[in-house]
Amino acid sequence: MASIIFTDCPMMLRPFHLKGRNGAFLPRSCVVKLSLPTTASGRGCTLSIRSSSPPSAIVIDGKAEAKKIRDEIKTEVSRMKESIGVVPGLAVILVGENEESATYVRNKKKACDSVGIQSFELLLPEYSSEEEVLKSVSGFNNDPCVHGILVQLPLPSHMDEQNILNAVRIEKDVDGFNPLNIGRLAMRGREPLFVPCTPKGCIELLHRYNIGIKGKRAVVIGRSNIVGMPAALLLQREDATVSIIHSRTNNPEEITRQADILISAVGKPNMVRGSWIKPGAVIIDVGIKRVEDPSAPHGYRLVGDVCYEEACRVASAITPVPAGVGPMTIAMLLSNTLTSAKRIHNFFQ
Amino acid sequence: MASIIFTDCPMMLRPFHLKGRNGAFLPRSCVVKLSLPTTASGRGCTLSIRSSSPPSAIVIDGKAEAKKIRDEIKTEVSRMKESIGVVPGLAVILVGENEESATYVRNKKKACDSVGIQSFELLLPEYSSEEEVLKSVSGFNNDPCVHGILVQLPLPSHMDEQNILNAVRIEKDVDGFNPLNIGRLAMRGREPLFVPCTPKGCIELLHRYNIGIKGKRAVVIGRSNIVGMPAALLLQREDATVSIIHSRTNNPEEITRQADILISAVGKPNMVRGSWIKPGAVIIDVGIKRVEDPSAPHGYRLVGDVCYEEACRVASAITPVPAGVGPMTIAMLLSNTLTSAKRIHNFFQ
Repeated sequence: MASIIFTDCPMMLRPFHLKGRNGAFLPRSCVVKLSLPTTASGRGCTLSIRSSSPPSAIVIDGKAEAKKIRDEIKTEVSRMKESIGVVPGLAVILVGENEESATYVRNKKKACDSVGIQSFELLLPEYSSEEEVLKSVSGFNNDPCVHGILVQLPLPSHMDEQNILNAVRIEKDVDGFNPLNIGRLAMRGREPLFVPCTPKGCIELLHRYNIGIKGKRAVVIGRSNIVGMPAALLLQREDATVSIIHSRTNNPEEITRQADILISAVGKPNMVRGSWIKPGAVIIDVGIKRVEDPSAPHGYRLVGDVCYEEACRVASAITPVPAGVGPMTIAMLLSNTLTSAKRIHNFFQ
Repeated sequence: MASIIFTDCPMMLRPFHLKGRNGAFLPRSCVVKLSLPTTASGRGCTLSIRSSSPPSAIVIDGKAEAKKIRDEIKTEVSRMKESIGVVPGLAVILVGENEESATYVRNKKKACDSVGIQSFELLLPEYSSEEEVLKSVSGFNNDPCVHGILVQLPLPSHMDEQNILNAVRIEKDVDGFNPLNIGRLAMRGREPLFVPCTPKGCIELLHRYNIGIKGKRAVVIGRSNIVGMPAALLLQREDATVSIIHSRTNNPEEITRQADILISAVGKPNMVRGSWIKPGAVIIDVGIKRVEDPSAPHGYRLVGDVCYEEACRVASAITPVPAGVGPMTIAMLLSNTLTSAKRIHNFFQ
């Protein structure tokens, strides 16, 4: 049986930003071994409830929606180029030779290429000084061809990550992690310049599936800066009544059972069991981890926070893992870059 | 019977910032007439539950705690003056001749005087231009004797309030309403320069009464930028599991009944009935409104969001209205001004 004790694990979720449509690349550290009994399908959780019920939930197809969004972005990028001769540009700064990070950067480049966004990559050696990185950030801040800047994390330990992230001009902070953006997201009557990509993708999926948010009880599991916290703020902006569960919450299942909409962003495979879910709820599963599975082609499979086999028999709609929230994150990054270019060049036709 | 439909009413709460120990001054627009049956004590709500129970809740004495805090601040201000010759300074800009605003400003001045903080008041005529106000803000931004700046709201309608508030240097934003401060409050691993005064006062009361927050279920009613939202963020920072109720919430009483800690900041007299409260809960009532009462000395009385007569028989601790949260707000404003002066002058002895 899975433990119900969990941790807030924001860094684990960072790879989401980097997952392209062509498949996920996850760091070795994300491979965990579950002690849960596995089912025939290898999903890793048993059908402890409603075992006789057939799967009834609509599967929210993040991959298909992300594809549609990318097509829309591609059209807009072309239109912008034809109208005013401007091509949106995304710059990524990578410090060091971390293999995983390099893969993420490659995936971003591919995604940009696929929609016509220009990508700029700056690879700096591991031993670069903080000043050198800041200088590069400053260069992109002032480069009129660049409309979005990402500094690939993690940075080498001798650098002050906050200092470097804060140096990114807020008008180009397509990650949406600048505290000024988060503050505007939290405040009524204020508008953030950018909304963080993964939570934005979650809400976009709800919208695209016509799932009402206003007046609904929403529960977010996890309070990370990059997913849980901004997801809660977004849901509140849409007039949901929001509760946030985290590692210090006692009996989280008592709260999740009240949720009409449940977003989980923790990184504990199969933590959310069928019994945690209110019948008819909508489930957005942001968690993703590799779980060892000798029967799988690569010796592992990707598992979300939610025990899918159980949840799909209780929920009314659910995102799968993979191909749920993941593909939406990169689509939202492209969307934020396009938005930035439009704003900078006053292209609102 | 009171309606359970309520609105988010942030502006109503603004007067809290201005309420001195010498009594509240509330705008005429805050005087409401309740249709609730009144009790002998004139509190305005009936004892619909546990009518035979005696009041058992500890009364959280905000007035006494605020007095202690002001005494602590006074000592610190003296020590700072003696050690480095610096006197903390608070500047208030008042535009126009709104009588209520003028009273608030006077109350602030009195509070500053009582602890030895220097106060600066700038009164500008109603017909001033936005540029003139911005110039004044800029003057205080650059004045080394000023460590905190407040722009008295509301501003005349021909001015852009956000624009003027944003002009206050974040290092002197003792109100804590700058989006950058709110963003830092929301983010794990970040620290706001200032925490908004009223929610800070609520948490301070919990601390001073040794009421544990970590792991508790906390419910905040109201999501205003100045109280509800930052109160929820503060509770989450202290590891409570937080739910936020607002005007779009269905059956709010179902959620409040789960709260170990309930903070209400709406401005609907007696909205929270005894039946909304979990036995043993701690209640912080931020709401305050004048309610017509011919039997009261001035023809009105001040009433909170919570039906006190009922709540004090169910809760384990409760703030009264007045003399609960109100006096803490001004104490926190003084505290923020002292903190600002210490930070600016590196006085951390």
